[in-house]
Amino acid sequence: MKNNRFYNIGQFMEMECDYEESDVIVFGAGFDGTTSNRPGTRFASSAMRGEFYGLETYSPLLGLDLQDFNICDMGDLELSIGDTDKVLNEIYEGTKEILNDEKFPFMIGGEHLVILPAFQAISEKYNDVYVLHFDAHTDLREEYNNNKNSHATVIKRIWDITGDGKIFQFGIRSGTREEFDFALRERHTYMETHTIDTFWKIVSTLGGKNVYLTIDLDVLDPSIFPGTGTPEPGGITYRMFEQIFKILKNSNINLVGCDIVELSPDYDRSNVSTIVACKILRELSLVASHNLIKNREKKEKNKLI
Amino acid sequence: MKNNRFYNIGQFMEMECDYEESDVIVFGAGFDGTTSNRPGTRFASSAMRGEFYGLETYSPLLGLDLQDFNICDMGDLELSIGDTDKVLNEIYEGTKEILNDEKFPFMIGGEHLVILPAFQAISEKYNDVYVLHFDAHTDLREEYNNNKNSHATVIKRIWDITGDGKIFQFGIRSGTREEFDFALRERHTYMETHTIDTFWKIVSTLGGKNVYLTIDLDVLDPSIFPGTGTPEPGGITYRMFEQIFKILKNSNINLVGCDIVELSPDYDRSNVSTIVACKILRELSLVASHNLIKNREKKEKNKLI
Amino acid sequence: MKNNRFYNIGQFMEMECDYEESDVIVFGAGFDGTTSNRPGTRFASSAMRGEFYGLETYSPLLGLDLQDFNICDMGDLELSIGDTDKVLNEIYEGTKEILNDEKFPFMIGGEHLVILPAFQAISEKYNDVYVLHFDAHTDLREEYNNNKNSHATVIKRIWDITGDGKIFQFGIRSGTREEFDFALRERHTYMETHTIDTFWKIVSTLGGKNVYLTIDLDVLDPSIFPGTGTPEPGGITYRMFEQIFKILKNSNINLVGCDIVELSPDYDRSNVSTIVACKILRELSLVASHNLIKNREKKEKNKLI
Amino acid sequence: MKNNRFYNIGQFMEMECDYEESDVIVFGAGFDGTTSNRPGTRFASSAMRGEFYGLETYSPLLGLDLQDFNICDMGDLELSIGDTDKVLNEIYEGTKEILNDEKFPFMIGGEHLVILPAFQAISEKYNDVYVLHFDAHTDLREEYNNNKNSHATVIKRIWDITGDGKIFQFGIRSGTREEFDFALRERHTYMETHTIDTFWKIVSTLGGKNVYLTIDLDVLDPSIFPGTGTPEPGGITYRMFEQIFKILKNSNINLVGCDIVELSPDYDRSNVSTIVACKILRELSLVASHNLIKNREKKEKNKLI
Amino acid sequence: MKNNRFYNIGQFMEMECDYEESDVIVFGAGFDGTTSNRPGTRFASSAMRGEFYGLETYSPLLGLDLQDFNICDMGDLELSIGDTDKVLNEIYEGTKEILNDEKFPFMIGGEHLVILPAFQAISEKYNDVYVLHFDAHTDLREEYNNNKNSHATVIKRIWDITGDGKIFQFGIRSGTREEFDFALRERHTYMETHTIDTFWKIVSTLGGKNVYLTIDLDVLDPSIFPGTGTPEPGGITYRMFEQIFKILKNSNINLVGCDIVELSPDYDRSNVSTIVACKILRELSLVASHNLIKNREKKEKNKLI
Amino acid sequence: MKNNRFYNIGQFMEMECDYEESDVIVFGAGFDGTTSNRPGTRFASSAMRGEFYGLETYSPLLGLDLQDFNICDMGDLELSIGDTDKVLNEIYEGTKEILNDEKFPFMIGGEHLVILPAFQAISEKYNDVYVLHFDAHTDLREEYNNNKNSHATVIKRIWDITGDGKIFQFGIRSGTREEFDFALRERHTYMETHTIDTFWKIVSTLGGKNVYLTIDLDVLDPSIFPGTGTPEPGGITYRMFEQIFKILKNSNINLVGCDIVELSPDYDRSNVSTIVACKILRELSLVASHNLIKNREKKEKNKLI
Repeated sequence: MKNNRFYNIGQFMEMECDYEESDVIVFGAGFDGTTSNRPGTRFASSAMRGEFYGLETYSPLLGLDLQDFNICDMGDLELSIGDTDKVLNEIYEGTKEILNDEKFPFMIGGEHLVILPAFQAISEKYNDVYVLHFDAHTDLREEYNNNKNSHATVIKRIWDITGDGKIFQFGIRSGTREEFDFALRERHTYMETHTIDTFWKIVSTLGGKNVYLTIDLDVLDPSIFPGTGTPEPGGITYRMFEQIFKILKNSNINLVGCDIVELSPDYDRSNVSTIVACKILRELSLVASHNLIKNREKKEKNKLI
Repeated sequence: MKNNRFYNIGQFMEMECDYEESDVIVFGAGFDGTTSNRPGTRFASSAMRGEFYGLETYSPLLGLDLQDFNICDMGDLELSIGDTDKVLNEIYEGTKEILNDEKFPFMIGGEHLVILPAFQAISEKYNDVYVLHFDAHTDLREEYNNNKNSHATVIKRIWDITGDGKIFQFGIRSGTREEFDFALRERHTYMETHTIDTFWKIVSTLGGKNVYLTIDLDVLDPSIFPGTGTPEPGGITYRMFEQIFKILKNSNINLVGCDIVELSPDYDRSNVSTIVACKILRELSLVASHNLIKNREKKEKNKLI
Repeated sequence: MKNNRFYNIGQFMEMECDYEESDVIVFGAGFDGTTSNRPGTRFASSAMRGEFYGLETYSPLLGLDLQDFNICDMGDLELSIGDTDKVLNEIYEGTKEILNDEKFPFMIGGEHLVILPAFQAISEKYNDVYVLHFDAHTDLREEYNNNKNSHATVIKRIWDITGDGKIFQFGIRSGTREEFDFALRERHTYMETHTIDTFWKIVSTLGGKNVYLTIDLDVLDPSIFPGTGTPEPGGITYRMFEQIFKILKNSNINLVGCDIVELSPDYDRSNVSTIVACKILRELSLVASHNLIKNREKKEKNKLI
Repeated sequence: MKNNRFYNIGQFMEMECDYEESDVIVFGAGFDGTTSNRPGTRFASSAMRGEFYGLETYSPLLGLDLQDFNICDMGDLELSIGDTDKVLNEIYEGTKEILNDEKFPFMIGGEHLVILPAFQAISEKYNDVYVLHFDAHTDLREEYNNNKNSHATVIKRIWDITGDGKIFQFGIRSGTREEFDFALRERHTYMETHTIDTFWKIVSTLGGKNVYLTIDLDVLDPSIFPGTGTPEPGGITYRMFEQIFKILKNSNINLVGCDIVELSPDYDRSNVSTIVACKILRELSLVASHNLIKNREKKEKNKLI
Repeated sequence: MKNNRFYNIGQFMEMECDYEESDVIVFGAGFDGTTSNRPGTRFASSAMRGEFYGLETYSPLLGLDLQDFNICDMGDLELSIGDTDKVLNEIYEGTKEILNDEKFPFMIGGEHLVILPAFQAISEKYNDVYVLHFDAHTDLREEYNNNKNSHATVIKRIWDITGDGKIFQFGIRSGTREEFDFALRERHTYMETHTIDTFWKIVSTLGGKNVYLTIDLDVLDPSIFPGTGTPEPGGITYRMFEQIFKILKNSNINLVGCDIVELSPDYDRSNVSTIVACKILRELSLVASHNLIKNREKKEKNKLI
Repeated sequence: MKNNRFYNIGQFMEMECDYEESDVIVFGAGFDGTTSNRPGTRFASSAMRGEFYGLETYSPLLGLDLQDFNICDMGDLELSIGDTDKVLNEIYEGTKEILNDEKFPFMIGGEHLVILPAFQAISEKYNDVYVLHFDAHTDLREEYNNNKNSHATVIKRIWDITGDGKIFQFGIRSGTREEFDFALRERHTYMETHTIDTFWKIVSTLGGKNVYLTIDLDVLDPSIFPGTGTPEPGGITYRMFEQIFKILKNSNINLVGCDIVELSPDYDRSNVSTIVACKILRELSLVASHNLIKNREKKEKNKLI
């Protein structure tokens, strides 16, 4: 019997549904082993669980409330820190189980490399998956620090899986000349960071498609998001993310998974970076939940007809 | 005899006029007892006194200079920290004395609840007082943590005094669904945060009216104001405040009191939040002083006629 | 079904036993409403849960391991922040339930005042309770900031319950002249902070007695414990606490409850203060668990005879 | 023999060319002796050398790469800290040597006063030098703290050298009434901070002219640049600097030297301010290098004709 | 009329007596212009005024209470920051005025150099002044950064005034070989830092002598005092200072002035360093006040006889 | 030609001798990939280079001066961050080169695991090497996070090389019960942390032996060394290290290499931890240099005889 005068803060507030009954599964993957600059993204999910309480469950932007959806915070994956290959496999297996149970994986990094095994599992389940990628950095190196698997190569590795024409990058403002050349040659849609128009256009062309969304939070300007490994001046504002959330909510894409990565909480002792990450988590998990239900209802309606 | 080689930093620079000769009375109310998230607004006024020296007394935005006005910093109210009711009464009595002396109270919080007794005193002196409310949060709960008087209920308590149609909220981006429903149902003018047009329109409809101005500094975006209890991403910029100051300066409203609340200085160790609060204090006390004189001159001119 | 690849960090590691099967019940009481200096002790228990993972479960000092005992972390009490009287009552009721279930309450403050209702409940269950009190401050004022119940009066209020000769203070180095006069007149055993000899002597006179242990962590020197509301230079070292733990482990006192209070984690951003609090929690919960079993076995042996 | 498994971080990455072969010479002048508010700009250049590694050598904004230019980081000037006159002379001599070697001096402050001797040396070498000045503060006092040479008087001292009509100030938002009056009377082009149009216009009128560029980094808004002595809310964004870099790159001005001053790294422990300064250093040294070559080629082409 | 509901925090608590009626005059000299490492001691006195409120007025160590003595905090000296010679002269004149009024100067630095003009004034008033010097560093260079007057040469400059045999250094653990050779050759009593025995012996030989006491707070170990320009591991504990205070209180020396210098508050964001400085200020001003009265009474008794 | 007005801070001051002429080679190994708690030791060597300037080159404790010895700072090893095996090999090769050149390797970590390949290289060059190990943690696990090579297993791996009776641990106060059992069974000399007597005794038994010294800086108490991954209360003071340095200087052991590891500078923003590490580096490199010369002279004297 648990004494009901007490509460326990181990899960994201209002993300405490049973796994079985939940559609969206939130989990942490606290790996930062290939981080070449400031480490500490390993602490992102636990820092976020501590700060999430300052937010309301209701989003006035979206008109949606966490209390109306079934979301389950699974906690963090147990990882063999120190051995990159083992860690990647553990993330792969963890994501696969969630997908096998027909649920939506929402991963909190960790460095950007953690999305590689998650995306591998997703691309095995769904075919023809498109990628929406928010980031300050291209992440398109072929190799970094003598390693093929790295936070600086991860989108190149994703491209190894998807091939051309599937990845859309937004907010990029740093990389080598070679990376930018590759992005253009391969017709990745590289775009200027100061307009959201192209995001709307691209999302509208992806109606009905399977889409994976990966957000390296350093896409935000360091003024609002200093707490990351490699802050890059000139980023987008939180207000732009509000537009992005609305576009996603109203879109017809079939979101099959998403992540937010690269929060390194100890580098922002005001905790604002962590709070920003929490608010993006709230908005995106609302969008994902809402769209899952919308799509399911649509399917069922179609069946009836 | 005070040796004139020395200076003493206990008051806001250029706010050291005699109480008797001053129009605008600045004082601190360092209470944060109902704060449910990060405390520390109790330190706001003393932190601000320490940072005010980095500012000039002249405002190029307004073309006004503190040296041309009589402003008196009274220091901080002595408060019975630990007993919310006693504290509220002490703030009420302190404000009342200032009002009885026909002076303009400019309070520095403390948490937002400190404005309730101040507004009580003001509404007893002036009738038909309108409220301009800047904030990230609705503050319209009926009760919070089992208390009716709380930082999260304070505008609802103000509404208990004013009734419908008197409160105008700006910058709100967080609250429960119930709070937003209340705001709309009761015809509080809730507005989007990214335009200042509506502020101009509303102020222009309040010409000649008694107006109280309350600024919860968390209305600002956390990028420029991390030092507060509950930072909420997506806020307004300091540049928007510049527009607000100009609109207020040029308006015909009869400002009867104002406050700035919710600076929690220790959560921003760069001290930028404190400096922002200081600059808002400078601009607003210039506006208040300037308009007091303008209105007095107008009245006297009218008398002559 | 919980996927076993994940772990959830909401409880102190190895303090996750079922409530029913546990002897020692750990819980947080995150109230700091009468704190007159730096607030933030409300965050102590959650900060400690986050840092506890850096410690081993085994104590080489004591030769005991958390894995060998049943300890249950209940999480934090839900408190009506803003209304001191309600909060004190909620702590009283929470502690009483634990005592009614014949369990040992181990409270994590919060400010020192939180121990008053806990001690009230304990003194109702056990008679003739002695108090071992570690602190930098006397806490013997009759009233503070116009309040009788305050962090600065709490030991005086405990004395109202116990009467003379029951309270032993250690490490005190700050107070008014009146408080020190009272401590001497009333034969509280005030002692110098730099010797542990008297602690050993006093504990040895309390064999078989019911004893409550309250540790205001500011008894430690600010060099090792800066993260508290009112740091006071000249305190004891952590090494002295090691002696204290050994003395307690080997003693014959009947420990009926204990607490550690006044960690304010945000004032020590190296987190060392939080880690120190965690280690004291580990050592004390080991001592309490070990002695509970020892005493129970002794009693049962006595019954057999 | 240097073992090639090691690298040494004492110079800005990719600014390690031989002095003799380099066009642009970067050096630090770590003096902050007249700073009246928060000191620490002395640490700017060494903090920047430490953070520069997080940046790529390639600028996607400008399409230029540090690897394609010869830039030499000389390290920091040895200065007689404590004696302002000696220090100014040492900076003068150091800059003069660089100019005598027909190289481009790029100074990293230090407080703003360090530019006075550097500009003195430049105005002795080049005649008719125009000044582009970015700053939050007018720096036009005649005297400050009883000193004629001060961070608060430095532009007035520059004006003593240039006379009227040569200095263009951008981003100014703080000063005394007298300073603003002087700026207008003397036809310094004081302009509003929120538009870049006038910068473009002014630069286009300076085609072929010798121009010195001085950037007090506090021209940036404190949201993105808290790490400075006197942060002033209401500044420009980093995005505006991107426009400035493009305008400079495409201009026909003859840049003869530049500086970035007033980074005080310890006041921004997220290091974002330092990173912003590094990125501005990269972009400006690319622009300077690119334009030096462009102008040289133009001259040589002209000679051929 | 000052409204008595308010208090103003501009002076050290209980050091608010009228200048005329006070024996001990506390004042700040916020100069750090020759500081070669981390600056910021300019903020010491104002930071201390803000933290002093956390201390009681009563010292249980000394059995003395600030409320029983007349102490006047004059605030801070106005200084011509940027011109070392002017600043030194301003400190000289300020100290001289206090001495002319037959009062005891208690200066709060600033860097160590600020004591040079103060000592100059003292040595002009009193003859045959001995110096007790606590410090981590010898400060015996002949010149530093090309300057004769520097924080690193200040005791050598004091020696220029006193000549041999007058200066006693305690706690020294850093300097050049030349400085240590000088200290020994000139029979400065350099001593090991880990014993207080020699301090007691030396003080006992100075009975009836005029003594100036200068405390560079970096004599403390950085564990308890990180907030200084050049922390040097291996220093003394606060407990040792307690012994020092007792020895001074019980001594027969004729204390003619004292100072505490080199607190740089921003480098210790837990504020513990500032609190330590406050407690030393309290204890020393109690000792000074107490001994002044004791000596005066002795003199008057002698007169009667 | 390097302009001699400038200095460059890329090497430890007075450790800038030519590699060929140096006996002691200092280098950084910035790897922290298996760190399970707070990362960031990768920044240790560059942070130390920045702070080293606050120290004198002369050690009054040892009577030795860096200026009298040839020490070469090689900078940091280039490492394949992200692949633990590659990194270990790179450290092995780097150390081997230094040893092949008959020089003394002084490594700055990085996490503790970096010493494994360095010790491997040393044990291949020298036979019968003894290990003096200072640490808070046993580091004797067989496996950690599923990895055999880890900061938590590194001394067990060293033991795999040395076998029984070669490793002496000091300052240990944390580990599992199994680790402590192993340490005792295998006759590792585990000792209490609060006495230096045993260190002296053990060193005196190792006269003439080859000895490797490894210092995990978390052996220090967190009061003086908070800047590390896993601070453990109850450690040794810096004063004890002074005894250790003296014992080593006066010993007859044949030191063949040493290291200091586990400084994580960003977790101590006062930089005291970094300064402590710098002072230990200075003292140990003086001891190593002094003893190398002493031993060489002894050998040559023996040859002569």
